[in-house]
Amino acid sequence: MSGQRSTLLFDATQRLLRRGALSHIKRIIAKTHPADLAHLIARFNEDHQVQLFGLVSDLEDRALVLAELADDAAAGIIQRIPRGEAVDILLEMDNDDVADLLGTLPKEISEELLDLMTGEDSFEVEGLLRYGEDTAGGIMTPEFVGLSESATVGEAIELVRQNRDVEMAFYVYVVNEHDQLVGVMSLRQLVISDNDVELKDIMEPGVVSVQTDTDQEEVARLVARYNLLAIPVVDNRNILLGLVTVDDVIDVLKDEATEDILKMAGAGQELVDSDSVWSAIRTRFPWLMIAFIAELIGVALITPFADSLQTHHYMAFFIPIIIAMGGSVGTQTATIVVRSLATGHILVHEVRRAYWRELRVALSLGGLFGVFTGFVGYLWSGWSVGFGLAVALSMLSAMVIAVTVGALLPLFFSRIKIDPAVSTGPFVTSAVDVLGLLAYFVISSLILSVIQ
Amino acid sequence: MSGQRSTLLFDATQRLLRRGALSHIKRIIAKTHPADLAHLIARFNEDHQVQLFGLVSDLEDRALVLAELADDAAAGIIQRIPRGEAVDILLEMDNDDVADLLGTLPKEISEELLDLMTGEDSFEVEGLLRYGEDTAGGIMTPEFVGLSESATVGEAIELVRQNRDVEMAFYVYVVNEHDQLVGVMSLRQLVISDNDVELKDIMEPGVVSVQTDTDQEEVARLVARYNLLAIPVVDNRNILLGLVTVDDVIDVLKDEATEDILKMAGAGQELVDSDSVWSAIRTRFPWLMIAFIAELIGVALITPFADSLQTHHYMAFFIPIIIAMGGSVGTQTATIVVRSLATGHILVHEVRRAYWRELRVALSLGGLFGVFTGFVGYLWSGWSVGFGLAVALSMLSAMVIAVTVGALLPLFFSRIKIDPAVSTGPFVTSAVDVLGLLAYFVISSLILSVIQ
Repeated sequence: MSGQRSTLLFDATQRLLRRGALSHIKRIIAKTHPADLAHLIARFNEDHQVQLFGLVSDLEDRALVLAELADDAAAGIIQRIPRGEAVDILLEMDNDDVADLLGTLPKEISEELLDLMTGEDSFEVEGLLRYGEDTAGGIMTPEFVGLSESATVGEAIELVRQNRDVEMAFYVYVVNEHDQLVGVMSLRQLVISDNDVELKDIMEPGVVSVQTDTDQEEVARLVARYNLLAIPVVDNRNILLGLVTVDDVIDVLKDEATEDILKMAGAGQELVDSDSVWSAIRTRFPWLMIAFIAELIGVALITPFADSLQTHHYMAFFIPIIIAMGGSVGTQTATIVVRSLATGHILVHEVRRAYWRELRVALSLGGLFGVFTGFVGYLWSGWSVGFGLAVALSMLSAMVIAVTVGALLPLFFSRIKIDPAVSTGPFVTSAVDVLGLLAYFVISSLILSVIQ
Repeated sequence: MSGQRSTLLFDATQRLLRRGALSHIKRIIAKTHPADLAHLIARFNEDHQVQLFGLVSDLEDRALVLAELADDAAAGIIQRIPRGEAVDILLEMDNDDVADLLGTLPKEISEELLDLMTGEDSFEVEGLLRYGEDTAGGIMTPEFVGLSESATVGEAIELVRQNRDVEMAFYVYVVNEHDQLVGVMSLRQLVISDNDVELKDIMEPGVVSVQTDTDQEEVARLVARYNLLAIPVVDNRNILLGLVTVDDVIDVLKDEATEDILKMAGAGQELVDSDSVWSAIRTRFPWLMIAFIAELIGVALITPFADSLQTHHYMAFFIPIIIAMGGSVGTQTATIVVRSLATGHILVHEVRRAYWRELRVALSLGGLFGVFTGFVGYLWSGWSVGFGLAVALSMLSAMVIAVTVGALLPLFFSRIKIDPAVSTGPFVTSAVDVLGLLAYFVISSLILSVIQ
């Protein structure tokens, strides 16, 4: 569904809701893909979300809509519908999605729902709830087709026929007598092989797997690198427990990209719900406080130069341009380094080479913009050679400081095991501001005390 | 392969290359996955890339390595190996990858190679070269399993058996007598159905497809939204031409995320090769020039306030903190708006609602930090109530200006059909700096002319 069409659908639904034309909405809902319904419902407030969800009549669609909604929206809905209905939907959903959803609910409600869900599903979900939500265990589905090495192709195809509700079965995994993962083959390989061949003769033995505690970013990286449709998850004895499918990997990649981008701007970790001012303030306040304190230190550091400033008041006019240019270059460098580290484009021990390149970039651009600014400063100050020289050198220094901070601060964060993306937000910018400012005042005072 | 292991592999290979122990490297290469080989080779300079690629002996592995390498690296290698070898490798590669690669080569070399490739492959590649590289046509593979509505399950399975080299065949597409796409089914559906059932009775009729000129970002969005493993590509008469598989979609998502992040910092569109200083300078210069000009305008705008500045020289000390705080808030807002637009979290016509939220955030945070800064300013200036009040109000104004620019500039860019990600780099930051600075000088001069 295109952007325009979802807007039309949203507008129509809003109009019909206002008029109370519920049967009309119901007809629209019946014709809409569950993934689109989830996007539609997500755009309403909580009361309307519950109301619209109530108009989805097909049980399978309800399960799909809930699985597609963000966890907090889905949790909001599931809490507000009768327990019996909720359990029916949960039983219809894939167990990895159920585990994600229950993990978001208050503990007493999730336990109540788990008690009401009986049988194998509830065991599986309880098993999944044990794993950290950002790990392979937390995003895996425990439903997969696993077969013994000595099984034949014919037996394997029969098993695929029987397990109709296994999510996305396009790989068949082969395990030994201890349930340890030993090989993999595609469903297609099965289809094109003779029925009486044993699996161990056609399987691919070197299967790439992850452990339950592998970080989801690493899972995504492997699936992307080896072009997989699913990756098996094993415990530390190599016993096959589940698999992560490529559709979940895509969600991970999208979420991680958004998270990185927001982190880099010091704007929290999630696209906050567009009506909540309070949560936006809470997320952003700490980053702004860091910037505030750093900039206050900057004010304190330049205060001793009050005399120079009083003598050469035009020095003040060039504060913004010098720190802005330094800030821009520093942000560029930090962004390139952080993103290169995140994509594996450069590794931590290669940052030095990247810094060397950035330094040459800064010397060139700093030289260039130093000449520009110096010329402007010379004219502005009424032909003061000293001031022209001072702003030129300050611009160059600010840029060199900027790339140094921009390259090394992410590296430092990465060494102390903090996501380097965090560093670009307030840290790089503030550090570049303060140090650039200090350089400007030191250089200008020194030069202006000698040359006018 | 984990980060540590690729570093070990890189170090070992580098050492062996220096020693000229090529047969040793050859043994390592034979044991390494082609995707890992591509990553390994990418980290060497061009001469070593060609040398290492020459040590890959298996033709299929050579094709996979070349497909996994970035297009410019792959193009560099293919140009420097004998034409005959190059053609053998190209014939082994998937045609969509060949088209990408040839599109990067100088025209005369790609035409020479196309002439040497004969038969169906070269026609397909020539067909693909017609489409824009960022469109569905440009990333699709023309190899797919397409069947008529009246074919039976048994016939379909037979066709899958025969087409062994069709890339990732997990969906079977159904076309009518005019080759128009009418339905889809999974390979699994075929396996679990009886052999004599007709496809039209088991196929899913409402198949989501894209046209050849659909932007690759839209293709990725649809695959992600509907959890597809592949999406069919049709022309404007709905005739099936090819399909885009999920592994290509993952590459698109990763590239687009990197591109967006770099664009937002005004650092070009690609992670530039880590040794090229000149290309880094060329990419970054225009953005810095925009910032430079904007900041010069800022200098010009505050020059008329030279008198106030001479009387109240401490005004200069608060320039950095006011524009830095405004800049931080503006970047946060712009990042949230740009990312929300990119992920479809908000639509263009909803930006007003987002702005209203951001405005309330700015009024709260601006009020808070205004009080902090005002208090500091009051002490710093030697108990000047006027100055305390001036910096407090300036801080508040700077933040309100920042969220206004940060929310509306991306919207404006999006309206004039420029990627809003571009706006956050130099535009938002410079505009916020200049306007915040002007507000500070106007407010301070006015207040200080009345209250001391």
